[in-house]
Amino acid sequence: MGLTLGELAERIGGELRGDPDCVITSVATLQHAGPGSISFLANTTYRKYLSRTAASAVIIRPEFAGECPAAAIVTADPYVAYARAAALIVPPLPPRQGTHPSASIGKDCQIDSSAWIGPNCIIEDGVHIGAGTQLAAGCFVGRDSRIGAGGYLHANVVICHGVRVGERIIVHPGAVIGSDGFGLANEHGQWLKVPQLGGVCIGNDVEIGANTSIDRGALDDTVLEDGVKLDNQIQVAHNVHIGAHTAIAGCVGISGSARIGRHCMIGGGAGIVGHLEIADNVTVTGMTMVTKSISGPGVYSSGVPAQENSEWNRNYARFRKLDQLARRLLALERRFDAKD
Amino acid sequence: MGLTLGELAERIGGELRGDPDCVITSVATLQHAGPGSISFLANTTYRKYLSRTAASAVIIRPEFAGECPAAAIVTADPYVAYARAAALIVPPLPPRQGTHPSASIGKDCQIDSSAWIGPNCIIEDGVHIGAGTQLAAGCFVGRDSRIGAGGYLHANVVICHGVRVGERIIVHPGAVIGSDGFGLANEHGQWLKVPQLGGVCIGNDVEIGANTSIDRGALDDTVLEDGVKLDNQIQVAHNVHIGAHTAIAGCVGISGSARIGRHCMIGGGAGIVGHLEIADNVTVTGMTMVTKSISGPGVYSSGVPAQENSEWNRNYARFRKLDQLARRLLALERRFDAKD
Amino acid sequence: MGLTLGELAERIGGELRGDPDCVITSVATLQHAGPGSISFLANTTYRKYLSRTAASAVIIRPEFAGECPAAAIVTADPYVAYARAAALIVPPLPPRQGTHPSASIGKDCQIDSSAWIGPNCIIEDGVHIGAGTQLAAGCFVGRDSRIGAGGYLHANVVICHGVRVGERIIVHPGAVIGSDGFGLANEHGQWLKVPQLGGVCIGNDVEIGANTSIDRGALDDTVLEDGVKLDNQIQVAHNVHIGAHTAIAGCVGISGSARIGRHCMIGGGAGIVGHLEIADNVTVTGMTMVTKSISGPGVYSSGVPAQENSEWNRNYARFRKLDQLARRLLALERRFDAKD
Repeated sequence: MGLTLGELAERIGGELRGDPDCVITSVATLQHAGPGSISFLANTTYRKYLSRTAASAVIIRPEFAGECPAAAIVTADPYVAYARAAALIVPPLPPRQGTHPSASIGKDCQIDSSAWIGPNCIIEDGVHIGAGTQLAAGCFVGRDSRIGAGGYLHANVVICHGVRVGERIIVHPGAVIGSDGFGLANEHGQWLKVPQLGGVCIGNDVEIGANTSIDRGALDDTVLEDGVKLDNQIQVAHNVHIGAHTAIAGCVGISGSARIGRHCMIGGGAGIVGHLEIADNVTVTGMTMVTKSISGPGVYSSGVPAQENSEWNRNYARFRKLDQLARRLLALERRFDAKD
Repeated sequence: MGLTLGELAERIGGELRGDPDCVITSVATLQHAGPGSISFLANTTYRKYLSRTAASAVIIRPEFAGECPAAAIVTADPYVAYARAAALIVPPLPPRQGTHPSASIGKDCQIDSSAWIGPNCIIEDGVHIGAGTQLAAGCFVGRDSRIGAGGYLHANVVICHGVRVGERIIVHPGAVIGSDGFGLANEHGQWLKVPQLGGVCIGNDVEIGANTSIDRGALDDTVLEDGVKLDNQIQVAHNVHIGAHTAIAGCVGISGSARIGRHCMIGGGAGIVGHLEIADNVTVTGMTMVTKSISGPGVYSSGVPAQENSEWNRNYARFRKLDQLARRLLALERRFDAKD
Repeated sequence: MGLTLGELAERIGGELRGDPDCVITSVATLQHAGPGSISFLANTTYRKYLSRTAASAVIIRPEFAGECPAAAIVTADPYVAYARAAALIVPPLPPRQGTHPSASIGKDCQIDSSAWIGPNCIIEDGVHIGAGTQLAAGCFVGRDSRIGAGGYLHANVVICHGVRVGERIIVHPGAVIGSDGFGLANEHGQWLKVPQLGGVCIGNDVEIGANTSIDRGALDDTVLEDGVKLDNQIQVAHNVHIGAHTAIAGCVGISGSARIGRHCMIGGGAGIVGHLEIADNVTVTGMTMVTKSISGPGVYSSGVPAQENSEWNRNYARFRKLDQLARRLLALERRFDAKD
């Protein structure tokens, strides 16, 4: 029931300015904090709330510590320190163990005795589930899939057959892992289904958002390396390869066999064409369309910001004839040169 | 079984031109209506079907009533009147009551005796469900969540823990409310999960589309005020606040802490960046990217309409070098001025 | 367990160059194939792997057959031939029959005795399910819906009431068919729900991707003709009509009453506005926004490819004032003409 500021500062790694015996029992934003709670200042947009916060303590960078009206835990990276503090002050519920009577377990499964298979979960034959892994409710795990230790599948997650998942995975509700890729061969105008025979291979410490879908490979696997983080409503097509510690925001679509590097950040609503490569440490901003390989680190964009509609329409009308406009400019330059 | 035109005109509020005793038993489009059915003309695109409709009656604006070959209910807003008529003529099925034997109910729940908990629904501990609310099948409601009276959750809806929902909510299949936000702190290139400790607070008369996802807040709540309507495949990130009576079309993505006003309309596929504010009565057209706050009502756009591909490519090739083109124009203006 | 190359060449229709008695037991990519496996070369990007492949045989076009270090099945369309070969070499699991004890079946259903209703499936009253159709697990089929023979519904699929589906449908996990359309009438600033009374009518040989949603019609049906293929995360609004053998990639949104022709291909992330018509044989490239009807075959685009961010910003800054730039050019042309 709470930690003292002294313990907290030691465990999250910061310099305490204030009473080490003050007990912290909750976390809150600067504007909504009260006594007993700790807050943080990471995004300077919220600095305006600092002077009037009622928090008992604030996790803060050295340069703003002087403005803090409460105790402070001073650290170079308050957001990281806050993440640690929140996990200590509001620990997750203790894991459950066993199998709910309404769950259905297939043959030849190896389910660790410390795992939890919740109500209405369906586990097909030959599935392995590691120590402590929690399947909340209504989850499906297809034949011969393996989920490592320490994972959490929220309600109504679907893991299809032959998917291999590492340790500590978190999957949010409605996500689908291992659905068939969109493999079609056109024969005289009709589409023939190409069997999707690969699997999905997911590393450790991966998180997958609500209603996101990840297709299985056509022949080889679709791969998410360690530490990949996917937001909600994302589409990952067959044989995509996502490098370690890459984070992808909501509503992104990634086409087949695209290969994304490590430590990349892909903004919301971006689209990535298939059969290309994106280097490590690339940032793609929101709603950008990547159509060619990107060979070096950097920031890449094509999302078009909103304008007032009539202004947009005037500009867009010119854009529709931009090639003509460019030709007119060239003609004028030539006339001018000829005259000179 | 059916209503007379007289009753109908009175209940939906329109002036009847025709036989008040004519019995209406169905609703239909102008082109597919037959005897006994009522149709409507709201979008003038469909006026061409009016003269040959076989409907027994048409709900119509005064200016088109003269062209109507059948009885007419004349009103200033035929679409609103039609919505009311359809609900009267084709009433929803009577609500069910009780709990299906396959449902699983946790401890300390308060489920109104007039509510229906359908097959395979899973209700965790401490949940409240109001009078008449219907959970169709396979729904999950996490611990301590509250759903008001008169609601309808279609199949396979997931409401996570600690979500508060008002009265008369409608949630379509596969929607997820209260999943974790995408909160990550970067520490030496690796992502640390930031616990998502807020909830979701939803007002009255809200509708949420199929496979839409709404994340819980990081600390404070994600909020949807009264009368908000969300279409399918929408992503609402943590701590978004959507004002009353705002309607959002399919495939929109809204980033964290964005604040959208009341009576807004957001077109399909639009993207809204986080930590900004959109005023009341703003319309954002389809596939627009909103990157800055919008301080006043109006229409805002950046969606780019299609062109024939080779024309598009020519224009786009110029766009890639638009800055150079603008510099060339400026240089030419200066040469011209110097000469003048 | 495996087929000889002779059998295979005959059944997929190609000319065999090599030992007809060689037994093939698996399929693989050129780079990962080993003895006993057959590979293919369709996309010339992968030609570089041909000379060193360890495959026992390769399905290949005549012009590359000379380079093949293994046996070859020579055919004009290796991808089609490969699709056939893969289905023969790795046949799907044999279908199951009957009803899992945890499934719930309503009244007045006609479920063929060769169909399979898997664990936790919920079938409402009056449903028909054809011969051999498989419902994997956790699927919901609403009252009076009909699903033809030979279909496969993967886990957690939702088919709402009154949906009619042809033969051999495949639906991937989390897809929703028949949710309410986004029908709203605005009355004094508040939204009134317009009852969605139509159904969904789906032809034969249709495939629907994971977490895709297809709304029911408002009055008439939403229609997908024979052979339509939808990828994941797609939104199909009410009363959309998709012509036969059209393929639509992931994350596309199609607004209400849009009518798309036959044999079209719609690229990922494209958006199609409502109440328009797209002709047969139209290709829409990725992330394009179609705002007007397209009356003839061809390729249409408006997706904007990524640039390095600072270059993009410079170009975009000019685009925001493109109308002014065009006016300046016109002014300069006039000054020049006046001088001439």
